[in-house]
Amino acid sequence: MVKDVETAAGRDYHDPPPAPLIDAEELTQWSFYRALIAEFIATLLFLYVTVLTVIGYKVQTDPLKNTVDPDCGGVGILGIAWAFGGMIFILVYCTAGISAVMYMVAQCLGAICGCGLVKWFQKSYYTTYGGGANELQDGFNKGTGLGAEIIGTFVLVYTVFSATDPKRNARDSHVPVLAPLPIGFAVFMVHLATIPITGTGINPARSFGAAVIYNKDKAWDDQWMFWVGPFIGAAIAANYHQYILRAGAMKALGSFRSNA
Amino acid sequence: MVKDVETAAGRDYHDPPPAPLIDAEELTQWSFYRALIAEFIATLLFLYVTVLTVIGYKVQTDPLKNTVDPDCGGVGILGIAWAFGGMIFILVYCTAGISAVMYMVAQCLGAICGCGLVKWFQKSYYTTYGGGANELQDGFNKGTGLGAEIIGTFVLVYTVFSATDPKRNARDSHVPVLAPLPIGFAVFMVHLATIPITGTGINPARSFGAAVIYNKDKAWDDQWMFWVGPFIGAAIAANYHQYILRAGAMKALGSFRSNA
Amino acid sequence: MVKDVETAAGRDYHDPPPAPLIDAEELTQWSFYRALIAEFIATLLFLYVTVLTVIGYKVQTDPLKNTVDPDCGGVGILGIAWAFGGMIFILVYCTAGISAVMYMVAQCLGAICGCGLVKWFQKSYYTTYGGGANELQDGFNKGTGLGAEIIGTFVLVYTVFSATDPKRNARDSHVPVLAPLPIGFAVFMVHLATIPITGTGINPARSFGAAVIYNKDKAWDDQWMFWVGPFIGAAIAANYHQYILRAGAMKALGSFRSNA
Amino acid sequence: MVKDVETAAGRDYHDPPPAPLIDAEELTQWSFYRALIAEFIATLLFLYVTVLTVIGYKVQTDPLKNTVDPDCGGVGILGIAWAFGGMIFILVYCTAGISAVMYMVAQCLGAICGCGLVKWFQKSYYTTYGGGANELQDGFNKGTGLGAEIIGTFVLVYTVFSATDPKRNARDSHVPVLAPLPIGFAVFMVHLATIPITGTGINPARSFGAAVIYNKDKAWDDQWMFWVGPFIGAAIAANYHQYILRAGAMKALGSFRSNA
Repeated sequence: MVKDVETAAGRDYHDPPPAPLIDAEELTQWSFYRALIAEFIATLLFLYVTVLTVIGYKVQTDPLKNTVDPDCGGVGILGIAWAFGGMIFILVYCTAGISAVMYMVAQCLGAICGCGLVKWFQKSYYTTYGGGANELQDGFNKGTGLGAEIIGTFVLVYTVFSATDPKRNARDSHVPVLAPLPIGFAVFMVHLATIPITGTGINPARSFGAAVIYNKDKAWDDQWMFWVGPFIGAAIAANYHQYILRAGAMKALGSFRSNA
Repeated sequence: MVKDVETAAGRDYHDPPPAPLIDAEELTQWSFYRALIAEFIATLLFLYVTVLTVIGYKVQTDPLKNTVDPDCGGVGILGIAWAFGGMIFILVYCTAGISAVMYMVAQCLGAICGCGLVKWFQKSYYTTYGGGANELQDGFNKGTGLGAEIIGTFVLVYTVFSATDPKRNARDSHVPVLAPLPIGFAVFMVHLATIPITGTGINPARSFGAAVIYNKDKAWDDQWMFWVGPFIGAAIAANYHQYILRAGAMKALGSFRSNA
Repeated sequence: MVKDVETAAGRDYHDPPPAPLIDAEELTQWSFYRALIAEFIATLLFLYVTVLTVIGYKVQTDPLKNTVDPDCGGVGILGIAWAFGGMIFILVYCTAGISAVMYMVAQCLGAICGCGLVKWFQKSYYTTYGGGANELQDGFNKGTGLGAEIIGTFVLVYTVFSATDPKRNARDSHVPVLAPLPIGFAVFMVHLATIPITGTGINPARSFGAAVIYNKDKAWDDQWMFWVGPFIGAAIAANYHQYILRAGAMKALGSFRSNA
Repeated sequence: MVKDVETAAGRDYHDPPPAPLIDAEELTQWSFYRALIAEFIATLLFLYVTVLTVIGYKVQTDPLKNTVDPDCGGVGILGIAWAFGGMIFILVYCTAGISAVMYMVAQCLGAICGCGLVKWFQKSYYTTYGGGANELQDGFNKGTGLGAEIIGTFVLVYTVFSATDPKRNARDSHVPVLAPLPIGFAVFMVHLATIPITGTGINPARSFGAAVIYNKDKAWDDQWMFWVGPFIGAAIAANYHQYILRAGAMKALGSFRSNA
């Protein structure tokens, strides 16, 4: 693969050297704390908007509570899927390139605060309607739940890698600006498919924050699924992108050039 | 931060000097009145389309009035959220760069006329179905309503600042053309989340225009919430963007350059 | 305004001389007949997809015909609005720049054939469920129906002019590729708002084609509304764009330049 | 037409010589097998997400199985149409330019595995709720089903050709990045219109994979329709694009140049 790159034109992308996971010097810089804050706020807004949509929807479809629109007033699964997908779209659009994706602690704190706000706003309804927590639904076994999380995260991370591939960006400068749209749509799609199975996690911080505020046994018993699944799915997607899709793209590019 | 900019390449963006809030000379120019008209028409169309969607939906879901589709004929909260988000998308696309955002008087007049048209078209249904007015819904206290408006406006203004940041535009010329889409989606998301709490204001002119035409005590009693909330939310978002996100972006840009 | 243009840079857009409405020479060219065919096919597909969606929806929400999903199986007004808006998006994307917008005869023939296909596919349901014809709904007077068509067409044509303004394109080359999206959204929005009033015409060929195939008195009695309304709305939008928005844009551009 | 091209500027697009259907040398290359894997995975994910959405929806709208949301909890036809359209959007975005469209065997295997996963996850519900298989619905004759598949595939392939036309790309470099959006919308539109008729195939591998896993007589009896229809529709669209739209575009470009 290195050879392919060597023979290509000079304006092509070259992989940077691998970065260390934690950079000691970085911890002393204000820019690092700013990125943590950005990560915290983005995750807080994500949970606030999406869980509020879930709870509002269940209040409206509860025949005992609702008087005006007993059957159809809520946004439905389609609306909930839009809420998750749309929030990812705007948050990726706003914060891409500012904060590192893996600032997990800030993300988990943001998720806890976002769900805390919804509980404060919706009071007893928050717990009554499941708190937006990810749980394996009745009728599915743990293998299915784990599988749904693995494949769902694979779809998301596969899209993220394709949409932000620096080799692709080097060839077409519009890719980064447009990347948030397919990424948001990937989240929308996975929610349409797997809300009935696990409520759709594919984001450990989101599942953890909701479990902390909801704090019921079932949410904690199933919590491992929403960490193991995403990590397996993301690892498969990263390898798939690196060794299948990206290599294929390089080959195709190479053939195109030798023909030209 | 100034230092970062100084060391950067010449094609980079430099902040313009602050502009006066009201420019006396501007009041004598035809272009100023044209911008007022554009602001008036855009707000009129916004209220006309969105409130008409809200009223049409409630007519259809009222079991006493509706014969063909007694349960599910309406567009639902999802459709209403699309109406608000989609109108913002096309109006920002059409009028961005022409009229100043804060021409509040023209906006309020436009909102009044837009709601007036809906009342004229839908007659008695307009009042029966709440006139599209923002009111705190039953079961929520004033603090929750104010909080929902603050956070909702924060999400919107945070997206607006990110999508139209001139520093970002200086680096990527496609950002301004694409900005209306994330802004419209932000409005869509906030409506999905907070229609069940306040009906979602996040725009004082929209709340004021509907209150004037609907003209019921409850709408006027809650009106302060739809002015105080948006101004607090917008102020927090402006500061957040200026001191956290933008500074972070500059740092990241700086590091990128010193590595290159 | 001419003066503003004169002082601007040479790469700016200059208005072309006005073209004659019918060019005698054009009638002898194959390219003219190809454009007619493109117009015919595009309108046929538009009516086929949208009216089929309308009819399919009504079949599903009819409690007498439907057994599996008696209440909520249909796509609803939201789905119908998406069908109209989405078809305009893809058709504008595919045929923009090929066929002139006003080839009304080809459009009307295409609309008739599109509805004819739906009638052939859906048989008796086509007539039972209203044939996708535009009619003033019960409870609205003719003035309201006409007003809804005028304002709806204004929203559409106002978006079309903004999205395809050659002066805007001269400054930003991405505008034409992105134009179909706001135009499609404008159609989506107007349908959300006015389906309950007139079924939403804002396109004389669409209303005419459905009336020909459906062929009931009410559809013909109301037909004038779907020709007069769109022409008035389009004329207002054209003048609004030319004398308010565009002049304003030129002024803003002029001020920006004299400051630079 | 050749003459038009000859007189045009050198940066214009020239048609490449026709490629052989199967290239013997290609079969020995690793890049060929990578493309097969990419095709297999993309089709697997497509069927997994979409059929899971279909089955989840039917579980929720079954009054005997569902207790919380007896009427309206599912995503509806609108949500199913979004699932198909959105998956095509992200898959075209991710894999365009990597794998050839016609790697039918890999596609069919991917479709079988995708449906197999859904059956494994949803167990008996998979068969009870129709398995996402394409079948002609009651009340429609075979001619209508075949017609619906022909026109639906025509809409899709017509959009694909317009959105990826290399002549158009040569003039505007943003077209390829944006192409997945209109293509995804075309799939969304066709599903809105024809789900009530055939369940919407317009993709032989999708219909075949679902039939293999569902494996009921009716799905096999109707299977021919989902191969003959798409091939006829695609062939008409390819000819329509080549001889009507594209020729028209060349003419328009030619006129534009001789005027300039």
